[in-house]
Parts: sequence; structure tokens; C-alpha cells
Amino acid sequence: MSSSETEGHEPVDTQTIVDALLSHSDQEILEISKRAHPGDIEQAFERLDEEEREEVLSRIPVDVLSEWADYLPPSDVEHRLQDLSEKGKKEVLESFADDELVDFLQEVEEVDRPQYIDLLPDEKRQISEDLLQYPEHTAGGRMTMAMAMVEESLTVKQALDELEPVREDIEVLSRIYVVNKDGKLIGNIRLRDLAFNAWNTPIESLLDSDHFSIQAHEDQEAAAQMMSRYDLMTLPVIDEEEQLLGVITYDDALEILEEESTEDMEKISGIGGERELAYLQTPALVHFRRRFGWVLILAFLALISGWVWLKYESIMKAYFILALYLPMVVAAGGNTGAQSATMVIRAMSLGELGPRQFWRVVWKEFQVGLGLGAVLGICVALQVRFLLPAEWVPIPDDVGALQIAMVVGLALTGQIVTSTLIGGSLPILARMLKLDPAVVASPAITTIVDVSGSIIYFSLAQLLF
Amino acid sequence: MSSSETEGHEPVDTQTIVDALLSHSDQEILEISKRAHPGDIEQAFERLDEEEREEVLSRIPVDVLSEWADYLPPSDVEHRLQDLSEKGKKEVLESFADDELVDFLQEVEEVDRPQYIDLLPDEKRQISEDLLQYPEHTAGGRMTMAMAMVEESLTVKQALDELEPVREDIEVLSRIYVVNKDGKLIGNIRLRDLAFNAWNTPIESLLDSDHFSIQAHEDQEAAAQMMSRYDLMTLPVIDEEEQLLGVITYDDALEILEEESTEDMEKISGIGGERELAYLQTPALVHFRRRFGWVLILAFLALISGWVWLKYESIMKAYFILALYLPMVVAAGGNTGAQSATMVIRAMSLGELGPRQFWRVVWKEFQVGLGLGAVLGICVALQVRFLLPAEWVPIPDDVGALQIAMVVGLALTGQIVTSTLIGGSLPILARMLKLDPAVVASPAITTIVDVSGSIIYFSLAQLLF
Repeated sequence: MSSSETEGHEPVDTQTIVDALLSHSDQEILEISKRAHPGDIEQAFERLDEEEREEVLSRIPVDVLSEWADYLPPSDVEHRLQDLSEKGKKEVLESFADDELVDFLQEVEEVDRPQYIDLLPDEKRQISEDLLQYPEHTAGGRMTMAMAMVEESLTVKQALDELEPVREDIEVLSRIYVVNKDGKLIGNIRLRDLAFNAWNTPIESLLDSDHFSIQAHEDQEAAAQMMSRYDLMTLPVIDEEEQLLGVITYDDALEILEEESTEDMEKISGIGGERELAYLQTPALVHFRRRFGWVLILAFLALISGWVWLKYESIMKAYFILALYLPMVVAAGGNTGAQSATMVIRAMSLGELGPRQFWRVVWKEFQVGLGLGAVLGICVALQVRFLLPAEWVPIPDDVGALQIAMVVGLALTGQIVTSTLIGGSLPILARMLKLDPAVVASPAITTIVDVSGSIIYFSLAQLLF
Repeated sequence: MSSSETEGHEPVDTQTIVDALLSHSDQEILEISKRAHPGDIEQAFERLDEEEREEVLSRIPVDVLSEWADYLPPSDVEHRLQDLSEKGKKEVLESFADDELVDFLQEVEEVDRPQYIDLLPDEKRQISEDLLQYPEHTAGGRMTMAMAMVEESLTVKQALDELEPVREDIEVLSRIYVVNKDGKLIGNIRLRDLAFNAWNTPIESLLDSDHFSIQAHEDQEAAAQMMSRYDLMTLPVIDEEEQLLGVITYDDALEILEEESTEDMEKISGIGGERELAYLQTPALVHFRRRFGWVLILAFLALISGWVWLKYESIMKAYFILALYLPMVVAAGGNTGAQSATMVIRAMSLGELGPRQFWRVVWKEFQVGLGLGAVLGICVALQVRFLLPAEWVPIPDDVGALQIAMVVGLALTGQIVTSTLIGGSLPILARMLKLDPAVVASPAITTIVDVSGSIIYFSLAQLLF
């Protein structure tokens, strides 16, 4: 995110860029690289397959690759780097923003890492070695060291003089962090305070006294949530001695929250592992690996439902009309359970709920479940009693439509109440056990409540027929 | 988001705030209001029920209500306002940031709106009347007019003098928008350019030439996505004459993207309508209304599956062991279809996919589906053939375990391929029809593929037995 990248660009429709990139014309590719922001190029790349991306990258000169480097998948950049001279490699590596450089280095094979680090100028090498200490998903792994920092003893004029030569390297200059002589973070001032105060004003007198910072080893999601909650443009990252290490900027917060939402959605739908690339960029084999785990587990879990059905063979054979409403009873549970789980998981991600609210959630879901179950049960019971065309579905002699209506209606009510309670409480129980609530994937809930639904339905039938 | 709010606050654990708020002690509530950032108070309020919130609000003085107003549910603020004197009402209304004030006015009953607008000072009244023109979810409805704006003809010194008196009212001062004498947006400069350049430098020579802006009537999500894609701190909002109307700030972008992710997740799980309040703050009746629609539709859709089962009554009765694997075949389709739908819906929300990529998605899902179906089919067929305890599940005389294994294995493969294709393509088809892709809720896909699964399974059995 350096200012030069945004200069002179205008928004360009993604498909237009895709068409230009696939034109096989160096000229057209160069023209689009001048018009479009690298953020738009990134989106266009998400729609290209591997061969196409390779072809495009082979056609662009080093300076365009340098401009795009922060925005392209690291594996693509690395692939292209291999064809470049040492000079070209250096140019591209130096063009990375320091946090993006670290992402790049984290993605390449560990054996190749030193070869790239050796090409960096001293200062960048030091910074990337420092940043590489922190795991990828921590605040430290996400921060940039390109921050504005001054010592508390300075005056406004001295601070301006100190920042002047480095001002274009700093990502966000609006918040300037103030440290004492040991590097310990003691507060911050705003660029506007420098711009609008007399030059001899001591920095100390302008200090903002808020105390928001995060430890380097904490999760990146915690950082993004703090920034969202307190409306922060930057969040300082500190070590255990409270020394200022770097900052996380608002654009990182946006990216982190998008990633975390995606991860939650995927987990809720029973997709495992981490999302490394865009949907089309991900090879089919990787998609397979991320999806097969739950598919296999759930398939064998579904055998429990099948086994329950076998146990009720006699009543099912005697009153085969039960088969007509069995999918409905079972599915109504899955649907309402998944709704409850999604709402509760999302509410926890947004910080709205904690384990202490367990009984409130149970009570809320019980009320909602009873409402949904009772109203749906009545609707369907009325349908069975009055709207079941006898010539179409023969009703057995020894039970009447009324009895069937009662079984279906009561089973729906019982099943939906059970399912909302299971769907609403399992994610909180997972959190209590220090698990990720989203790991309670809704397909798992569906499979569990399929079993309860079958049992409720068949036992009611046994009781009332 | 004014600077005074963040002064002297530190992060406080949500449960600690909840405990203090529920202490029934004015003293403790006042103390926590001094320590905790209103963003943390907001989170604590999300865990309180209506009565508790009312009780807390009745205990706080006007100045605390003013500090919290931007962060509390508008209905709570309005409720408390009714007990205040005209002076108190004025104080609270004036404390709102202008975009939050508009949110508040949009939420109150239309008949009550003029009564609040009349209490505002002239300038705020004008601003809120201007902002109220734009619907809630548009860029115009989300923008603030508290932006930094100067005319192109000024010098650095003149610009600084012009901004000086208003600097504390401006939300983000880092980007200063430059307009010509007709108010038309022609570019922007950065505060750092003012701070570090000679006073007689003409503004014009510092202009950044990027051209990112959004029309007021466009959707707020488009604005947030532009800000995320181009790493913008603020996005200018313009009218059809390209006159600058306001800006959307980075903290709004964060909020919008969080809201949109929540909305997508909820839609995918078959929850309708809009999320107005936090999970626990939403009354059970509202939860019921948001969830009943899909539950009812899906219940009657599930009748199709039941009807299919009735049609296959004879084969099911003759080979009741089919019931053991029926839930598995049906559920495997639901699970894989929901996975595909979620991935494609999310990829579209992130801008990774457009309708032009339809066939690529179909091909990707076909490969993944075939892989998942074939591997699962083989696993389960082996289980049927070699691991089905005969004393536990009696295998009929006229068909062997091999035939059953073939039926189950092939049905799983066919069902999963069908489901991934349906799950992956329906959201894109929805987009082509200008519908929201997330409206293709995964429960709907599950219900559809339940039918296909039953048909595939039973027809294979008829063929092979």
C-alpha cells in the first residue's frame, strides 16, 4: 500500500481486465497495467487458471511485476521470479511492502527462503527476519514496521524534521506513536496535532491517553476486532516489555475480518483446512482434500439413522404412508437446527455472546423452536387431515387421517424443539471446551437431528396407531 | 468516532462490564463508563435483555448517554430520550456523529422524526435533512459530511488556515478532498503533503491523480468493496454532477463488510429478513418471523421426497435393507451440495467469480464431485461388502452383499456429482437472473437433492436387484 500505486488509476471492470490479460498482446497488457489499480488486477487474476496466469506473467516487464507483487498470489510471483536476472529479482523483492514481503517469504519453501532474503538490502533483510519470527496468524505476523514513531522528549518541529525524510515509506502517518527512551510505547499523537501546533510545543503535551495495543503473539482476529470495536485506524503491536514493534493498519483489519468470515462460513458448511487461494485458483485436488473429511464422517454417521429405520421395520411396513412424511420431519429438524447454529456461531464471532449467556440462548431457542414447531405442526396436520387426496395416497383402514395428522404434527413440534436446542447449544458448548464454535458444522447437526427426528416420529406412530 | 471518546479508555473484558452494568449501583455504572470505551459498552449491551438495558439507561446521567449514543441501539436511546428535558434531549442529539444521527432518525417512527430534527442546531439540521434523502443501504445513506475539503486555488498555508478551526470535527483528516469552484471533486491531497511542504506551495501541484469515488445512490457494499480492494482510508461520495457530497470512512467499511458477511451467512442457512439487533436483543417473535418462511416452504418441498419413497414402496418393502443406506445417500448429497453452494456464494461475494465463469465452476465442481463421490462410494461399498455384520443386518436371500454394495456405491457417486453440480451452479444462475446468489439457501439445495438422491438410489436398486 504505497501511494505511488494508487496514482493515476481508475476503477476498471474485472471482466475488461480479464479480456485484456488474455489478449496475448504485450501492448494491451501493458496498457491495462497503467489504467487499472493492482487491486483490480488481483481480482482479475482470481478468474484465471494456472496456465493463463503463467502466460500473462511471462509477458509483463519487471516494473509491472514489481507494481503488482503485493497483490498477486505469492506462488505466482515466485514462479515468475525464477526467470529473472538477479537484478530483476532484487527489484521485485524490494518493491514488496514489508508485511507482504513476509507473507511471500512465509509461503515459499523453507529451503528457498534464504536465497530470497540474501537478495534484500540490509534494512529490509533485518525487518523481514524480525517479522518472520511471528507465526502467520498472529498480530506480529500481520503487522508492518513501516510506522510513524517518535520519542517523547521531542518538540513538534523536531518530530516533523525526524519524520520528513521517511514520510513516504510510512503506511499510515495519521497516528504517530510515542515511545520513551527504552522504546516502550507511552501513547500516540495525531499528524494533525503536528500540523496545527506551534513548532516549539513539546510532544508530551499532545499525547492521547488511550491505551489500545496488542501483544505480538495474540491472534490476528483479536487485533481486527479491537480495531473494529474502537474504530482504530492503526493498532500498535507490542512485546512483553511493552516495546513498540509495529502496527496493524485499517486495510489489514478489513482483510483479516473478510478472511475470518470466509473461514467461519466454510466451517459451518463442513469445509475443512485453510483457504489459501481464490475458488478458481484452488486445484480440484485441494478442494477434494478440504471437503472429503466431513463428507466421510457424516456418511458413516448417517448409518445411525438407517439403523433406526431398520429397527422400526415392522411399523413402517404396516403403515407405509409414514414414509410420505418421514423426509419432512427429518428435514425440518435439520433446517431449524442449522438456522440456530448459524445464528449462535455468528453471534459469538461478533462478540455478542459468551459462555455465560448459555441459558439465555437455550431459553431463546426453546421459545423460537416451540413457535416454529407448533405452527408448522398445525399447518401440516391440517394438510394431512383435510388436504390429503385419498385416491393419491391410500390411508390404511385401521388408522384414520386424524391419527396420522396427530403423529406428523406432534413429531414436527418435538423434532423442531429438539433441533433448535441442539443447534443453539452445541456451538456454545464447543466454546466452553475451548474449541472453535464453527467446528460444529451444520451438516453435523443435521445428521444428529436426523436420528432424533426418526426416533420421535416412529415412536409416536407406535404409540398412537 | 470523535477523538474525545477514545481518550483515557482501556480495553475492558465484556463480562466485567456486564457485571458492573447489572450491579444496580449508580456509582459502579459511572465508574465503568469512565474506564471502558463505548465500543466495549456496546458489546456488553448486546448481552442484556430489554428490561436490563432499560434499567441501566435509567441510571446514567445525560453526559454518559451522550458519550454512548453513537454505539447503542437507536431504539434504546430513543426510549431513554423520552424521559429527558428538552435541554437533555438537545445535548444527546447534538452528541451524535452525523452519520449515526441519520441512522437514529431513520430508525425512529416517521411521525416522531420532525420532533427530533427540530431540536437540532441549524447546521446539524441541514446536514441530517440532506443525508436523510439517501436510502439507508446506499453510499449516500452511509456517508458522513464531516470531511476535509478545500478549493483547488489555495496554497498550503491557506488550506491549513481553512482547516484549522474545523479540524476536530473532521472524522478523517489524512485525505483532504480538493474541489473546483463549482464543488466538483477533482482530486485529493494528503495531510502529510500540507505538513511537509512550504507554505506557499499551491494545492494544485500536490494533487493525487487517482479517481476513486462512488455515486451516492450506489449500494453501500460496493463502496466497502472498493475501499477494501484499493486499500482506501476514505472514499468520496459524489452526485451525478460529480459534486463532492461526503465520504465513507474506513470504520464504516469494516462495519458494512461485517454486516454483509452476516447477511450472507444467514441467507445461506435459510434465515430471511434483516438483522436489526444482536442475537439476544432480538425478541423471540422476530426470530420466529425471520425463520418461519423457509421452514414452511422446505417442509412442503420435502413432501416430494416422501412421495418418491411412496412410489418405490414395493422395492423398499421387498428389500428393506435399502432403508439402512437411504439416509446416507440422501445426506451425502445435501452435505456436498451445501459445501459447493457456500464456496461459490462466498467467492461471488468476494468478487472472485462472475457469471462469465459459469462453465469453469461447473467443470471444477464436476471434478470435485466425481472425486468425492467415487472415493466415498468405494469406501462405503467396501464396508457393505466386507464389514456388514450378517447377524446384525440380515441380507436378503436373492441379492448378495455385492449387489447391495454396487447399488450403494454407485448411488453415492451419482448423487454427489449431481449435488455438487446443483450446489455450484444454482448461485451463479441466481446472479444471472439478477437475484442475490445467497438466496439459494443451502437447505433448499439439500431438499432438492434429497429428491434426486432417492430417485437415483431406488432406480439403481430396481435395475440391479
